[in-house]
Amino acid sequence: MTLSGKQLVELGAVEARQLIIDGEISPVELVEACIRQIELVNPAVNAIVTTAFERARLEARRVEKQTLHKEDPGLLHGLPIAIKDIQDTEGVRTTYGSPGYAEFVPEQDAAVVARVRSAGGIVLGKTNVPEMSIGANTINPLFGATGNAFNPNLSCGGSSGGSGVAVTTHMVPLATGSDHGGSLRIPACYSGVVGYRATPGVVPNEQRRTVQSYYSVQGPIARSVQDAALLLAVMCRRDQRSRLDPMTFPMDSGKFLELDAVDVGALRIAVTEDLGGVLVSESIRRTFRERVQLISGFVGCCDWVDIDLRTAADVDWHLRQDIFVSQYYKDAEQWDEAFNPNIRATYESALNTPMSEIAQARCVQMELYRKFIGLYENYDLVICPGVSVSPFPWSTMYPAEIDGKAVENYMAWLALTSSITVLGLPVLALPCGRDESGLPFGIQVIAPMYRDHRLLSAAHALEKAFAREHALVRPIPDFESLKCAKKL
Amino acid sequence: MTLSGKQLVELGAVEARQLIIDGEISPVELVEACIRQIELVNPAVNAIVTTAFERARLEARRVEKQTLHKEDPGLLHGLPIAIKDIQDTEGVRTTYGSPGYAEFVPEQDAAVVARVRSAGGIVLGKTNVPEMSIGANTINPLFGATGNAFNPNLSCGGSSGGSGVAVTTHMVPLATGSDHGGSLRIPACYSGVVGYRATPGVVPNEQRRTVQSYYSVQGPIARSVQDAALLLAVMCRRDQRSRLDPMTFPMDSGKFLELDAVDVGALRIAVTEDLGGVLVSESIRRTFRERVQLISGFVGCCDWVDIDLRTAADVDWHLRQDIFVSQYYKDAEQWDEAFNPNIRATYESALNTPMSEIAQARCVQMELYRKFIGLYENYDLVICPGVSVSPFPWSTMYPAEIDGKAVENYMAWLALTSSITVLGLPVLALPCGRDESGLPFGIQVIAPMYRDHRLLSAAHALEKAFAREHALVRPIPDFESLKCAKKL
Repeated sequence: MTLSGKQLVELGAVEARQLIIDGEISPVELVEACIRQIELVNPAVNAIVTTAFERARLEARRVEKQTLHKEDPGLLHGLPIAIKDIQDTEGVRTTYGSPGYAEFVPEQDAAVVARVRSAGGIVLGKTNVPEMSIGANTINPLFGATGNAFNPNLSCGGSSGGSGVAVTTHMVPLATGSDHGGSLRIPACYSGVVGYRATPGVVPNEQRRTVQSYYSVQGPIARSVQDAALLLAVMCRRDQRSRLDPMTFPMDSGKFLELDAVDVGALRIAVTEDLGGVLVSESIRRTFRERVQLISGFVGCCDWVDIDLRTAADVDWHLRQDIFVSQYYKDAEQWDEAFNPNIRATYESALNTPMSEIAQARCVQMELYRKFIGLYENYDLVICPGVSVSPFPWSTMYPAEIDGKAVENYMAWLALTSSITVLGLPVLALPCGRDESGLPFGIQVIAPMYRDHRLLSAAHALEKAFAREHALVRPIPDFESLKCAKKL
Repeated sequence: MTLSGKQLVELGAVEARQLIIDGEISPVELVEACIRQIELVNPAVNAIVTTAFERARLEARRVEKQTLHKEDPGLLHGLPIAIKDIQDTEGVRTTYGSPGYAEFVPEQDAAVVARVRSAGGIVLGKTNVPEMSIGANTINPLFGATGNAFNPNLSCGGSSGGSGVAVTTHMVPLATGSDHGGSLRIPACYSGVVGYRATPGVVPNEQRRTVQSYYSVQGPIARSVQDAALLLAVMCRRDQRSRLDPMTFPMDSGKFLELDAVDVGALRIAVTEDLGGVLVSESIRRTFRERVQLISGFVGCCDWVDIDLRTAADVDWHLRQDIFVSQYYKDAEQWDEAFNPNIRATYESALNTPMSEIAQARCVQMELYRKFIGLYENYDLVICPGVSVSPFPWSTMYPAEIDGKAVENYMAWLALTSSITVLGLPVLALPCGRDESGLPFGIQVIAPMYRDHRLLSAAHALEKAFAREHALVRPIPDFESLKCAKKL
């Protein structure tokens, strides 16, 4: 089997792995093809900010030998992968998008990275993030912005923006990300790929500063649900360092390798376009309604339901204040004027917030959760749009206004995702055609706590159905124009 | 088989259930024997504050018929049980130990109670608690104090004090409890019975006000580890209401019915008498050291280890402040002067605490956790004393001083238990002979998160070994003197 470079980089992760194991393609060729794609396309979008090509080539040759010797293949056997630059990579510069770490080279992999490597994944490079990964527009003082692959002048979302762009542009089949208020989902939607925020505790996170929190959840970005599930199966492996995270409940990580066959015609779906009234542009509402119309043609039922999560964004802000104080109280003294204004604004507002407000927000959180899960008595899934507006210019930190309404701060335009974080529920961003501007459009698919396997299985079935409807098909960037685009 | 009343009330839960199923004893006789025991002994100790005898008799007759008809027996088939008065019982007065609820009769069982009933458990009554279950001495303005079964002038601990006393005095084989800072463990130690605080999330708690917390954990009190495991298997069942608690991770509750055979001679035990320096009386230290000497004679190893949890009590106080604000901010306006001073003191101190202090406490909590679990690289279990002092007179809210050192507040004398809550680890209170005053002495047996089954299995093995050593044997109250004691 001889595949061109273009064909090699188009391969999905599950498919590429099987071809490597079967000796049909060489991991060395695959890595070279991805490196070539990065060299061609990355200048236009600036998704990958640090590369590890020489090490990747060595590792690819090692995998090739293992294959020849019929050694047991790892789950990511020979697959090129990009790592979000908030996650430490041994020997490879890790900046957190911050000038303060411009030359930092970790001595140890973060546990998710170690799991990726020990499964045979080949790290090609690090993907761009907002400074310290806070904000939903991928821009920082060290590397500048990552451009949207469908129009490099526009935002690719964030904070896992570089990962979303690297995957949609075929630089890599897989990338890691993490999600606080939408950081896996927003960039997935803006890049037309799959991003998955699992139930907190599924992916052990030894770096969390507090024993219990829904922030932040590490997860996969891929071009298909099955590929995302493969990377998830690796990221959530229980190992020596998992016990550093007390939320790591016992679970068989291998179960994500086999998704159930779900009859899409039997799926009962609850639909809401704005979670009961959060900020969503008219244009996105129209697109979502059209898509729901199409989807209702092939699922069991697709009912518009009453949900009211309008107070969730305020809860998120308070919980965010609380977690930021835990996260940053040791560092705050050293921040200068240039440091991420999103972080400074949240932190400073936190210091003047009485703890009773935080406590009340926690109670509201519980009330919202208990109301929302009532929906699952009658429905398998809840769906809503993933982002409130079409991609905006990355030159503004966040969209300044939506349909004439001013946007208050860096979180106010993304209540669609942050409200789901408040609930703690597992949620998948699924590509769903293009919006009215011709840019990628995605929906959030939301399931009950701990039903990750069911959610992934159902999303996989939906994805297959979407592939048969022109308006629902996953969008693919125009590579030729990207290759000619001026350097970002 | 004809058993006397005395023999019937002595039966353990697992044994009694089997005898009922085999038709060897009648559930009606068992219930009558327990009622008789309550009538004889309860006046001296005041453990059970509300009874449900007529309903219990009806239910016992129903179970008897089910047995005759060979219907599938429930896990608690015909077993008399007492419910902590903080847990709602449908049709049976539930006061939370508070005059404000003196006549409150819930219309619905709390979920743990519903699970007990649907497993065939027969609720005989409600057990006494401090007001709103806050405090480790069981006394309240509504029912007064519960006396220690080994000396009714002394405290039985708390907050599940009535449950501990009801079980040790053979009024019931099983009782429910709950544990915030030691509320299952302290009364278990003071009554010479087993109390079990499972990993948070094992027992679904639909009444918690916040989505994630180690407070408060519901659990079993029994006279043996196996009986506690039986009740746990019922309390932790996943049902319709479990999903109201987002911490309810997937788990097979049935696994607690079969404990593994553990070779006590292979157990590696880490030992600390004071968690690195928390307040523990000299007398308790001496008793603990003697017991460790004995235990080291039959386990694999029993090593004194360096642990430093001295900052954990302060963390607990801050987390407690935080949770109290969530729990009580709606009610605080209505409190009068007589309301539980423990709650008022914690709540009022909370309002003046900056949120940065709480956030920092959370970070310290994580650091303590990560250091502590390092012990489990070399040891299966950690043990330490359960309570810092021998039972004290219940007429003081808490021991005024320990070895001449003043005790600062209602939490300062129980850092041995509250510090383990801060870590979140599963912990079992195991009876271990008597202290220097001839009163029950118990140890805490602590395992890693989610290793509940292993912990129960190991504790079961230890318990069997203890039964062979005179100084380690579970103490039993002097029933004759209790029956003659003056009414408490």
